[in-house]
Amino acid sequence: MHALALTDDGPALVDRPLPDRPDEARVRVLRAGICATDLELVRGYMHFRGVLGHEFVGVVEQAPGPALVGRRVVGDINVACGACPTCLAGRPTHCPTRTVLGIVGRDGVFASHTSLPVGNLHPVPDAISDEAAAFVEPLAAACEILDQVHVRPTDRVVVLGVGRLGQLCARVLALTGAEVVGVGRPERTALLPAGIGRSTVDDARGGADVVVDCTGSPDGLRVATGLVRPRGVVVLKTTTHVDPTVPAARWVIDEITLVGSRCGPFDAAIRLLASGSVDVRPLITDVLPLSRGLEALALAARPDVLKLQLAP
Amino acid sequence: MHALALTDDGPALVDRPLPDRPDEARVRVLRAGICATDLELVRGYMHFRGVLGHEFVGVVEQAPGPALVGRRVVGDINVACGACPTCLAGRPTHCPTRTVLGIVGRDGVFASHTSLPVGNLHPVPDAISDEAAAFVEPLAAACEILDQVHVRPTDRVVVLGVGRLGQLCARVLALTGAEVVGVGRPERTALLPAGIGRSTVDDARGGADVVVDCTGSPDGLRVATGLVRPRGVVVLKTTTHVDPTVPAARWVIDEITLVGSRCGPFDAAIRLLASGSVDVRPLITDVLPLSRGLEALALAARPDVLKLQLAP
Repeated sequence: MHALALTDDGPALVDRPLPDRPDEARVRVLRAGICATDLELVRGYMHFRGVLGHEFVGVVEQAPGPALVGRRVVGDINVACGACPTCLAGRPTHCPTRTVLGIVGRDGVFASHTSLPVGNLHPVPDAISDEAAAFVEPLAAACEILDQVHVRPTDRVVVLGVGRLGQLCARVLALTGAEVVGVGRPERTALLPAGIGRSTVDDARGGADVVVDCTGSPDGLRVATGLVRPRGVVVLKTTTHVDPTVPAARWVIDEITLVGSRCGPFDAAIRLLASGSVDVRPLITDVLPLSRGLEALALAARPDVLKLQLAP
Repeated sequence: MHALALTDDGPALVDRPLPDRPDEARVRVLRAGICATDLELVRGYMHFRGVLGHEFVGVVEQAPGPALVGRRVVGDINVACGACPTCLAGRPTHCPTRTVLGIVGRDGVFASHTSLPVGNLHPVPDAISDEAAAFVEPLAAACEILDQVHVRPTDRVVVLGVGRLGQLCARVLALTGAEVVGVGRPERTALLPAGIGRSTVDDARGGADVVVDCTGSPDGLRVATGLVRPRGVVVLKTTTHVDPTVPAARWVIDEITLVGSRCGPFDAAIRLLASGSVDVRPLITDVLPLSRGLEALALAARPDVLKLQLAP
């Protein structure tokens, strides 16, 4: 099969055998999304080698059991052992020997087919289009914030950086009724739906109850610290391959809480898409065939591009 | 009165007028403690100028009302305006225009007398000696951890750095029934009471539910990150005047929560000392007269010294 892989010489279109693990489902990819993590992987983050991509929707072609064969599915990207103390403590997404689709020790979805255990797959209701279903994974990551932090309808929330993930976080956080302000460049904040405030970094008002760092920049944590109130919460979504220098004394003096936030609940994301509570369509800049995957990776790094999807 | 002040030329013994604010209580200092923050202030932290010191017990000599005159008291170090949105939201210790005893805009307690609003003072029961009462402020800061983080009796807790503050944090955290391990040099961990584990940094076991950084070092946050489990909590007690470089991507991937922690509940600290639940006496290295304050500051910076107290 054709695939877009990260090799020792960088990203490349390669030919790979079809996945054929008897203990897993083989999924034909219908649509896949490019995310900032993919771009970070290309820059050296996690030292990954293999087929890139982890946001997708597809159709199950074969599986150990018949239940899902022929069904349209999305997939949890963390494949846990299910037996270690971390898994048994209810934290399978943190299993120390986990593989992660297209990120750690497991080929991803920028290919005609991919492979995942049946337990990782979630059927997608007909109400959700392919293009929207490919957003389930990052939308679940946005929902993770509300699983970790009690955001109140009376809170003021700043989403710092309204690129791919920030746009989704702002939409999910606004569903709480909180006053949400997206902070970023005007051409990005213009994509936020009605009811969500817009500001540039220079004009952003401080004293927020919650600030979500979706900047993707090593400086994001410092800027977020300047915008949160004492005893407020900073949610960390940014991963970069350089360690940032941070105003930690400020965190102590102002008793700031910082919450690292990664993957989230798929079922919640599917419900929000099925109900129409979150509309992701304005975020798609373009859809390219997998054969133009290298071009798509380059485009995705441009500041005027939001979500690029690949259609194998 | 004699006082130990931080001047443009560094710390010095100076002569100052007796405090005489009609809106505040004048307190004759019986005993004062030197803390790591005092040493950081001398190094330039917060750019403080004035009489140093914020840990104390004293006797009220004069006050706007008669209730506390003649009583032995300890004092909350944050003096808030009581009228701003932060104060009215129930966060007076974070009042943006607050002064802080011996730290921000207010002379401290390394003097024969000090001054605080009556509302900041807490009477000390007879069961608590002067030497123990001078620990109420840092012991309250240790109690603040339990006000912020739900530490369970089934948790494993690492207190990283068992100097002045770490010793108190370990003692308070052990009262939850949790498995507490103090990590530091053997001569320091030897001072921990029975029931608290001891380890060096090199031998410390990872995977802790909660790690408290009491190292006082810019590297503490990185070491703490290496010892906490995924979805665990790192409590930050360390303030330094240099910004540390930190493994923030790890916080995101492992969904670590970091909690900045500063001043805490005085009443809880007083109860723990009055009941004998916490014994602070083994932590006192020496008591010196205020006239030897400069010598005491130098001694307090030595690795083999824990708490030094000044008796004016």
